[in-house]
Amino acid sequence: MSVQELEAILHPRSVAVVGASANTSSWGYSFTHHLVDYGFKGQVYPVNPGYPEILGFKCYPSLRAIPGTIDFVISCVNASQVPQMMVECGEKGVKGVHLYTARFSETGRKDAADLEQEVLRLARNSGIRLIGPNCMGVYHPRVGLSFGYNLPKDSGKVGMASQTGGGASGFVHLASLRGVRFSKVISYGNALDFNECDYLDYFIQDAETQIIVLYVEGVKDGRRFLETLKRATAAKPVIVIKGGRGKSGARMTTSHTASIAGSFNAWDAAVKQAGAVPAKDFEELIDLTVSFYFLPPVRGNRVGVLGGGGGPSVIAAESCEEAGLDVIPLPRDMRDEMKARGVTIWDWISNPVDVSIIGGSGMTDIDMLHLMAKHHDFDLLIGNFNEWVMITLSTDDRFSTSMKMQPKNYITIKERYGKPFLVVMGERGVVSSQFTSTLAADDWHWKAMAEARGELMAAGLPLYPTVERAARSARKVFEYYRNKT
Amino acid sequence: MSVQELEAILHPRSVAVVGASANTSSWGYSFTHHLVDYGFKGQVYPVNPGYPEILGFKCYPSLRAIPGTIDFVISCVNASQVPQMMVECGEKGVKGVHLYTARFSETGRKDAADLEQEVLRLARNSGIRLIGPNCMGVYHPRVGLSFGYNLPKDSGKVGMASQTGGGASGFVHLASLRGVRFSKVISYGNALDFNECDYLDYFIQDAETQIIVLYVEGVKDGRRFLETLKRATAAKPVIVIKGGRGKSGARMTTSHTASIAGSFNAWDAAVKQAGAVPAKDFEELIDLTVSFYFLPPVRGNRVGVLGGGGGPSVIAAESCEEAGLDVIPLPRDMRDEMKARGVTIWDWISNPVDVSIIGGSGMTDIDMLHLMAKHHDFDLLIGNFNEWVMITLSTDDRFSTSMKMQPKNYITIKERYGKPFLVVMGERGVVSSQFTSTLAADDWHWKAMAEARGELMAAGLPLYPTVERAARSARKVFEYYRNKT
Repeated sequence: MSVQELEAILHPRSVAVVGASANTSSWGYSFTHHLVDYGFKGQVYPVNPGYPEILGFKCYPSLRAIPGTIDFVISCVNASQVPQMMVECGEKGVKGVHLYTARFSETGRKDAADLEQEVLRLARNSGIRLIGPNCMGVYHPRVGLSFGYNLPKDSGKVGMASQTGGGASGFVHLASLRGVRFSKVISYGNALDFNECDYLDYFIQDAETQIIVLYVEGVKDGRRFLETLKRATAAKPVIVIKGGRGKSGARMTTSHTASIAGSFNAWDAAVKQAGAVPAKDFEELIDLTVSFYFLPPVRGNRVGVLGGGGGPSVIAAESCEEAGLDVIPLPRDMRDEMKARGVTIWDWISNPVDVSIIGGSGMTDIDMLHLMAKHHDFDLLIGNFNEWVMITLSTDDRFSTSMKMQPKNYITIKERYGKPFLVVMGERGVVSSQFTSTLAADDWHWKAMAEARGELMAAGLPLYPTVERAARSARKVFEYYRNKT
Repeated sequence: MSVQELEAILHPRSVAVVGASANTSSWGYSFTHHLVDYGFKGQVYPVNPGYPEILGFKCYPSLRAIPGTIDFVISCVNASQVPQMMVECGEKGVKGVHLYTARFSETGRKDAADLEQEVLRLARNSGIRLIGPNCMGVYHPRVGLSFGYNLPKDSGKVGMASQTGGGASGFVHLASLRGVRFSKVISYGNALDFNECDYLDYFIQDAETQIIVLYVEGVKDGRRFLETLKRATAAKPVIVIKGGRGKSGARMTTSHTASIAGSFNAWDAAVKQAGAVPAKDFEELIDLTVSFYFLPPVRGNRVGVLGGGGGPSVIAAESCEEAGLDVIPLPRDMRDEMKARGVTIWDWISNPVDVSIIGGSGMTDIDMLHLMAKHHDFDLLIGNFNEWVMITLSTDDRFSTSMKMQPKNYITIKERYGKPFLVVMGERGVVSSQFTSTLAADDWHWKAMAEARGELMAAGLPLYPTVERAARSARKVFEYYRNKT
């Protein structure tokens, strides 16, 4: 039942923004703006007695004053005005309300919690379903609903339900810079009506969603949650980030979404037991989402690493090992092949491949990638661009050439062998020239890297800022598929 | 004795590059180029019978053919040519030789190891000291010596000795983008003559060096090393990254610098026991260097966090707690002050400060930073720019304004209170517009962030890409000062 109701709410024919505004620093402006900016095709009704029109739409003094039907309402008014609004929603036959409105139970105040319960009672009376309160609501780019600026306008295969709105919005933005796209994202705050289980149930059956991401601070019904999580992970990968595991985090969740957070250990164990993949922070959440988005199933942990120079290779090997990958020595028959090809240092080259010793040996770094990719002893590959070293050991011309050629070589490896292949390239900050004139020429380096990143992502290669983060993600993807079979 | 000899080698009046070349993809070109590019003021003698001149310098067929004295030689010739070169160095009274030349004992071959010993014998016969072999040599920007492109030309207070050359060079570049500058960096590879202890001894007495960074894969004499390390850490912070801790890493170090790596646990314990600060990978090495560079002593672990929105605040709290910082509740007298000032939600605002609830409360996020900075219960502060969320929840105008104003506010906090203050701002990758037209406007966002970063760094604020990395660094800096007193 909740699934069908949510489906209807996610595909509204008309949206009213109550508390809409022409003040660009208000949320009532933002939500109206997003309907335009993301191309919502249905009717848009700004509601505010203070304006004749907002962003080109006729503005209405109240919901009652709107002539047509209203499927979905976004509430930006103060908490005290919500009951009256709910009454009007009932009269207008509204299906769903997103309560951006906050300052209910999360404030820790009894009157606010009572008001929240009154809102729920009014919704139930009229058969209205609620998203929130205290949340950013819906990002559904396919129909033109959004809760943020600078989010992708195209769709993808990640569905997300999140108790944090800002975190979800920032996450969508950052993940999109790594090539990820989303089906539906719902920030649901205090979970007064629809809760985490309803959203999971929805994503389980949603064909557009192939990977589920969940940020929870607390759950309403632990048994139902774990049972739903198990069904979800049987259907598709579910990545879970849990806010409020520690002492201070638990204190924070109460004031954030009025959740009672459980202990970290119990949570972590239960989530893993259910087959879901836990993430510890937003960076790992992005890495894992990128991994499930782009990687084929990882069936083993024996990794071949193209490691950069000597020291970086050593550290890369250790990062992989500490993450639980097996950095195997080069197989004997591979060495035999290298020897037969006349490679001068067939007995010296190792895994990770130290590219600084390979010049003039008769093999290139890419030759080594091909050999490892086609050898059945390697379950996955990590290709380390090592651009942070290359920028200092190559002339600018060679750096530029490498940034142009190396992505093509990497893409060939992916396309020819279909083996899980993770690419490491830093997300380096660039200093403005005002700070240091010696690095003023930096712009073009950054642009060359951005182009290389773009090319790799367009070809469906997952990018990670460090070997450590690539390795940690790969290990978790491997564990997911191992537990599944 | 080694210290004085090294001091002389680091301040040569003349440098010969043996194996110099006009081929821009050769190392003989690079080292000659760097002498010009970094402004070396002494005599430069390219040596190569195949060229009349290189980069405007007269080129000599041999060292013998050079008319003047030669203090320092950079060797780019093949290993087999080194003995003859050493004989000529002896004749010319050369003080020091940097053997960029590789393929000695690190190849694992007996003839190569024997050749290495022959080179050492020849050096000892003539009183010549050696850096290397198999290394990048010297970066000493004050006198115009460099081993890399795109490194800062100005000096700073970090001295580094490193068994990895590429890693050291990349590290200098990346750390410089975070505001760090270096006194002297020596990549020393196989440590045939000068070893890690000689370099430590040098940095202990070097007034220009206030922080020491060490990358080691193996040490020649464990007892001497720990004794030297203890003396070094008594004098200044020493950050140590150890290559070859794990199984595969140990295998790699043998082929990299012919080092026999010890076990991780023994190493880690010994290094900590000596008072040094261990780093696990290059990212942490950069974070720790930035921390010791910019932070005043951290005397306690009670942290105040400006955390971004709700979810990010929760995760920030947990990252701090897991790193070993104490995210204390707001002190009672601070709440009293907030109440007295008429802050409407004085009982709701918490630590970390959730900036999403603070609007209209009578307090700003910066007011909260001031309150925490001046309160004696807080030993350090973390200010989270949270630009990844802001970019999606603010209009572009407000984002732009914030990127202009917030750095000034942060700098005031640093200057007024002098408390350890770590700033979190992501090093986000930016996608080229070819990949996604929806994010084509990204350039100016990135530029605004680069300007903000530049302003913060110019004012001496340490920047970290994530709260987790800031917190982990702060904890290690705290431990360093706690162990010292």
